[in-house]
Amino acid sequence: MNRQCILISRPTGVAQAENFAIVETPEAVLGDGQIRVRNAFLSVEPAMRGWIADAGNYAAPVAIGSVMRAIAVGEIIESRSADYALGEYVTGWFGWQEQAVADASAIIRRVTETDLPLSLSLGVLGINGVTAHLALTRIGEPRPGDTVLVSTAAGAVGSAVGQIAKLLGCRTVGIAGGADKVAQCLSRFRYDAAIDYKSGDIAATLTAACPDGVNVYFDNVAGAISDAVYPKLAIGARVVVCGTASITNWDPWPTGPRVERHLLVKRARMQGFVIFDHMDRYSDSVVQLAEWVRSGQLVYDEDILDSIDACPDALAGLYRGENKGKRVIKL
Amino acid sequence: MNRQCILISRPTGVAQAENFAIVETPEAVLGDGQIRVRNAFLSVEPAMRGWIADAGNYAAPVAIGSVMRAIAVGEIIESRSADYALGEYVTGWFGWQEQAVADASAIIRRVTETDLPLSLSLGVLGINGVTAHLALTRIGEPRPGDTVLVSTAAGAVGSAVGQIAKLLGCRTVGIAGGADKVAQCLSRFRYDAAIDYKSGDIAATLTAACPDGVNVYFDNVAGAISDAVYPKLAIGARVVVCGTASITNWDPWPTGPRVERHLLVKRARMQGFVIFDHMDRYSDSVVQLAEWVRSGQLVYDEDILDSIDACPDALAGLYRGENKGKRVIKL
Repeated sequence: MNRQCILISRPTGVAQAENFAIVETPEAVLGDGQIRVRNAFLSVEPAMRGWIADAGNYAAPVAIGSVMRAIAVGEIIESRSADYALGEYVTGWFGWQEQAVADASAIIRRVTETDLPLSLSLGVLGINGVTAHLALTRIGEPRPGDTVLVSTAAGAVGSAVGQIAKLLGCRTVGIAGGADKVAQCLSRFRYDAAIDYKSGDIAATLTAACPDGVNVYFDNVAGAISDAVYPKLAIGARVVVCGTASITNWDPWPTGPRVERHLLVKRARMQGFVIFDHMDRYSDSVVQLAEWVRSGQLVYDEDILDSIDACPDALAGLYRGENKGKRVIKL
Repeated sequence: MNRQCILISRPTGVAQAENFAIVETPEAVLGDGQIRVRNAFLSVEPAMRGWIADAGNYAAPVAIGSVMRAIAVGEIIESRSADYALGEYVTGWFGWQEQAVADASAIIRRVTETDLPLSLSLGVLGINGVTAHLALTRIGEPRPGDTVLVSTAAGAVGSAVGQIAKLLGCRTVGIAGGADKVAQCLSRFRYDAAIDYKSGDIAATLTAACPDGVNVYFDNVAGAISDAVYPKLAIGARVVVCGTASITNWDPWPTGPRVERHLLVKRARMQGFVIFDHMDRYSDSVVQLAEWVRSGQLVYDEDILDSIDACPDALAGLYRGENKGKRVIKL
């Protein structure tokens, strides 16, 4: 039998444990070209909120009654594909379940970094690291000497953005919530400066931390933090819109200070980034990220939950802020 | 004696006639490298509001007591420059005055299109036409078949944007205020569709006029019109932020629906454009625009006021919407 976590009702806002159920289903039979993967780790992403929401998004919402959409990594235990062999490790859209039957189209890549922990394929060598790397370089276009400001600076994406920007010769400033995360930004992720948005006047702190303005703002939150950042943009600044984590509900649609005047006066650019538009660069990016991980220039934190039973509450817990590092579920 | 229009007090919001005065000053003596220009036409721009405002902008504000900053076009009537000869026509930063003493740095270009009206150097062959052309092509990046939506579609910049987008193979949709301007968009500026923002439900009208979404939104207004447009952006859309004319006051800073989610879900881009960053392409652009004007593919309207005495109220009148076409002052 295969244990699965399915979506049983559509939440308003962030999905809670009661929106999911664990079910047991018989093993499916493999069709031509398919593989069976025994998942070793399941991923938990902030973006899952959007995948579940019945609103405009970049993919169709997860259907009620179906296995929760998720990236996972595991070993091939049965193969009817000429391209994939028994015993190989792959990462892909295998869902929140113990075993997956997958077509080639569901596979993101073969995991070849066997010297590194398998779970990294879901984090710093997966969607988080690749998002950080490609969104920063392709949309943010950082130049040596630029001030790169990162929101959720200690998070799975943000911490990689800060470190990569530093490797590219930028001055890095992180925004995080609380003294612990700020300390982590400075000591662990080597930001040049870090701001606690929960303490003091963020506008004044930003001005002090970014005396020449902000050349690249890598934004994972939107909301009040971003509102404080826009007036500090430097001429020609680039804003990477990578997430809107601070806004838990878009119905009714929230308002904020208008951005048009900032963009005009600063000749600045705001642009949305979704990793699924950039899958052609995914493997090359992982190769680069793995080199940085091996050399110790790119560090990461993981928050590892145990067993499929951890799935239902895993996303809600992420939005409660209880994880420190990339949240994955070990099976 | 030289008659000048000077700024005598700083307005809040749009400058009114009482913020200016006409004065007579003696002719200045030419220094080495300088020229004396007899202005034939003075320009009146919506952007002057920003040049006057004592707020963050892309240039230092016009000082109280000084000649109003303006582009003008005229004939060289005295020259101590090796590069410019008596009798040549030039356009540049000559100010709201009858005669200007100018350094080479104030000259934008020599007017060589002597077969066309001189006043065009302030409009369709000047800052308006060049802004339309360069902002559309460099920031909007229209592709044949794209839907290009233009606000202030019948205005000096907007009407050129619509026509140029059409020449580049796009489907063009204009937004304008009132039945007259809508009719003008369709008949004169050859938009494929035109929307009256003063009549009916703009969201529904936009959906009908842009069934495949908006690939390029060329925005001169911001505010409620733009708020209705953002939800209609197509995947990969480009928003050219060229002006914020609908917002007459940024103190207190106005709010509106947040744009981040639209930019993320649509992987769209918003970017500010200020012509002064693109002066290296100015002359090449004028050459192209003049070709289109000569062939009748690019038409324009002018609103010509008479004499320096028209200056003080000229900008306020522009914001009252009393002009039809590019407003210039003939001396």
